[in-house]
Amino acid sequence: MRAVIRRDRKLVCDEIGELTPGEGQVLVSTLACGICGSDLHALHHMEHMIDLSRRGGAPDSGFDPRADTVFGHEFCAEILDHGPGTTKSLKAGTRVVSVPITMHNGGVEALGFSNRLPGGFAERMLLSEALLLAVPNGLPTDQAAMTEPFAVGLHAVAKAHLEPKSVCLVVGCGPVGLAVIAALKAKGYGPVIAADFSPRRRAAAERLGADIVIDPAQESPHDRWESLGVPKTRAGQSMMRMMGNPIARPVVFECVGSPGVLQMLIEAAPAGAQILVAGVCMETDRIEPSIAITKEIELTFVLGYTPEEFAETLHMLAEGVIDATGLVTGSVPLDGVAGAFTALGDPEAHVKILVKPGG
Amino acid sequence: MRAVIRRDRKLVCDEIGELTPGEGQVLVSTLACGICGSDLHALHHMEHMIDLSRRGGAPDSGFDPRADTVFGHEFCAEILDHGPGTTKSLKAGTRVVSVPITMHNGGVEALGFSNRLPGGFAERMLLSEALLLAVPNGLPTDQAAMTEPFAVGLHAVAKAHLEPKSVCLVVGCGPVGLAVIAALKAKGYGPVIAADFSPRRRAAAERLGADIVIDPAQESPHDRWESLGVPKTRAGQSMMRMMGNPIARPVVFECVGSPGVLQMLIEAAPAGAQILVAGVCMETDRIEPSIAITKEIELTFVLGYTPEEFAETLHMLAEGVIDATGLVTGSVPLDGVAGAFTALGDPEAHVKILVKPGG
Repeated sequence: MRAVIRRDRKLVCDEIGELTPGEGQVLVSTLACGICGSDLHALHHMEHMIDLSRRGGAPDSGFDPRADTVFGHEFCAEILDHGPGTTKSLKAGTRVVSVPITMHNGGVEALGFSNRLPGGFAERMLLSEALLLAVPNGLPTDQAAMTEPFAVGLHAVAKAHLEPKSVCLVVGCGPVGLAVIAALKAKGYGPVIAADFSPRRRAAAERLGADIVIDPAQESPHDRWESLGVPKTRAGQSMMRMMGNPIARPVVFECVGSPGVLQMLIEAAPAGAQILVAGVCMETDRIEPSIAITKEIELTFVLGYTPEEFAETLHMLAEGVIDATGLVTGSVPLDGVAGAFTALGDPEAHVKILVKPGG
Repeated sequence: MRAVIRRDRKLVCDEIGELTPGEGQVLVSTLACGICGSDLHALHHMEHMIDLSRRGGAPDSGFDPRADTVFGHEFCAEILDHGPGTTKSLKAGTRVVSVPITMHNGGVEALGFSNRLPGGFAERMLLSEALLLAVPNGLPTDQAAMTEPFAVGLHAVAKAHLEPKSVCLVVGCGPVGLAVIAALKAKGYGPVIAADFSPRRRAAAERLGADIVIDPAQESPHDRWESLGVPKTRAGQSMMRMMGNPIARPVVFECVGSPGVLQMLIEAAPAGAQILVAGVCMETDRIEPSIAITKEIELTFVLGYTPEEFAETLHMLAEGVIDATGLVTGSVPLDGVAGAFTALGDPEAHVKILVKPGG
C-alpha cells in the first residue's frame, strides 16, 4: 500500500508492506488525517524531540529517528477487517476515530511516531478495537478528523483554574489556540480575547466564538484587561476586593510555542494570572523568575488529553457544540503531503490541511 | 538616633533624624530585626531589583536606590509613643510585630525598602497602629521577630495544591525552606523530604520536623519519590491509578533562588509535579518548556503573605505549633551588621542573624 514516509528528513511517497490485523486489532482505511504542527517540527528535528521527550521521562519506545516513519495522528478511518480476539461490535464500513495509540505485540505504539506501525499518512492503519469510537450523528469525516486537535484544547481548558467570570486571553490562533477558544466557549467561559497576527486565523477565532479578536500589530491584547474588569496590578486587584468586587483570576493560554513568548506574557499579563502553556516550544527559553514571583504568576504546562476528553470532544463536534466547519482549508492526496508541509509554513495560507490517502 | 544605612552600596552606622509619630502611627523601639536574603541582595543589586519589580507591575513608590535606606523588615518592637488619631488600645511597653508596611503621609511605605522611613536596622521605627499585633503568650522577642520569614513559608504552603497524602520535597533549607518545612508540618502535611548541602541547615530542617533529610552531594532527593509511593513517570502513575491506588500530586518547593535550579527540578521531579517557586532568583533563568510540557509540570511563583497569614504565623509561633528556637544563630548590635552581612554569605556559618539596635 502507499504511504508518505519520513526518510532522511524528507517526505517521500512510496510503497510499504501490507498490514494484517493482530490480536485485538482492526484494519482500517484512512479517510482523512490532519497535518499537525508537531509533524512539521518532527520532519527536521526528530532527534531533538526524542531527546527532550526522554529527558521528560517518557518511556523509551525503541523509536529510531533514522528509520522510516509514517506520520499522522489526527485521523478518521473506516473499518475494513477485524483481527483475532475482537468483538466486532463495530462492523466493517463503520467510520471511527481513536486516540493515536495501538496495542501491538504486547507494547504500545504511538501512531504517527512509530517505526513499526504507520500513522494516518498511509492508505491503511492498524487500530486497537478497544480504543475505537464510532463517528456519531453523521458527523462529516473532515470534522471527525478534528477530534484529536480539538481534544488538546479541551484538556488545556480542563487544567485551567477557571471561574464563571474568568477573563481568558488566547495568544496564538493556530490549531491549538482555536481548539482552546472552541473549548472555552463550549464550556460557557468567557469573555475570550483572542490574538493573532494573521487575518485568516483571527477570522477563524471569531467564527469559533472569540468575543474580542485582536491583531497584536495594532494593539496589545493586554490593554483590554482593565476594561474587562481585571486590574493588572496586585494593588489594583486588592482595591477591587476591598470595594467588594472579587475578581476572577485572569487566565492566559499560550498557544504559540516560540521562545520569548512566555516571558512576554509573564511581563504583560495581570498579576496573579495563570498562564496555560499549550504551545509546544522545542527550544530553550529564558524567563525572569523574579518578575513571575512579584506577580505570583502560575505557569501550567499541559500536553495531550485523556481518553475521556477525546471522547467528549468527538461528541461536542457531532452535536454541534463545537463547529469545526471551515477550519479545514485544504486537502491533499498522499503525493501532495510534502507540498502541504511547505504551505503550512505560512500561517496566512492555511489553518488545517487534511491528508486523504484515498485521494 | 542610630541606624545602619545603605549608602553608596555599603552599610554604615550613622545618626539619622529622630521620628515623630504622625496620624495613626506609633513610635516603637526596635528590639530585634532579622537579616533577610533580600537585604543581602539589595545591598549590591538594588537598581536591578527595582527594575525587575517595576517590570513586575509594582507601583512606582518613588524609591531612590541612590538615596540612604535603612533595611530591616523582620522585626519585633516595643511601643514607645502614640501619634494623633490612634486608639492606644496597645499601651506603651507592649511588644508588637507588624507586616513591614507603614501608612505615611497618605502613601504606603515598605519598611526596609524606603527612603522616607527607616526599617528595623534602626533604634526606632514608625509603625501603623492599625497593623500592629501584640506578641502573645510571652513569646520571646527573638522568635516573634521570626514571624515575617515564617509567614513566607505559610503562604507558599497555602498556594500549594496539597492533599493529605502529598509527598513534599523542599529544596534548599535556608530561612525560606525552613519556613516551608515548618508550615507543612504545622498543617499536618507530609512526608516532607528536605535537601540542602549544608549540615547546619539540614540539622535545622530536622529540628523543624522534616521527615527525610538529604545531602544532595550524597544522594539525589529525587531517588526517594518511588519508595514513598510516587512513580516518576506518567506511565507509572497511570499504572498506579489503574490498580486502584490514586496518588496525591507530588509537590516541590524551590527555596534556593539560583539560576538553573528550576530546570534541574523540571527535569528531576515526578511527572505532574507542582513546583512552588519560593526562592527568589534575581537573574535571568533558562528552562526547557517542552520538558515541562511532556511532564505537565506546574510552576507556581509565590511571594510574601497576606495579613491573615502573618497573624496566623505569629500565633503558631506563640502556641508552639512552630518551634523557632535554635534558628537564631547570632545577634549583633548596629555596628555589627556589616560584618553579619559578610558572615551570612557562608550557609554553614549561620541560619538567621538578628540585629538588636539596643545592643
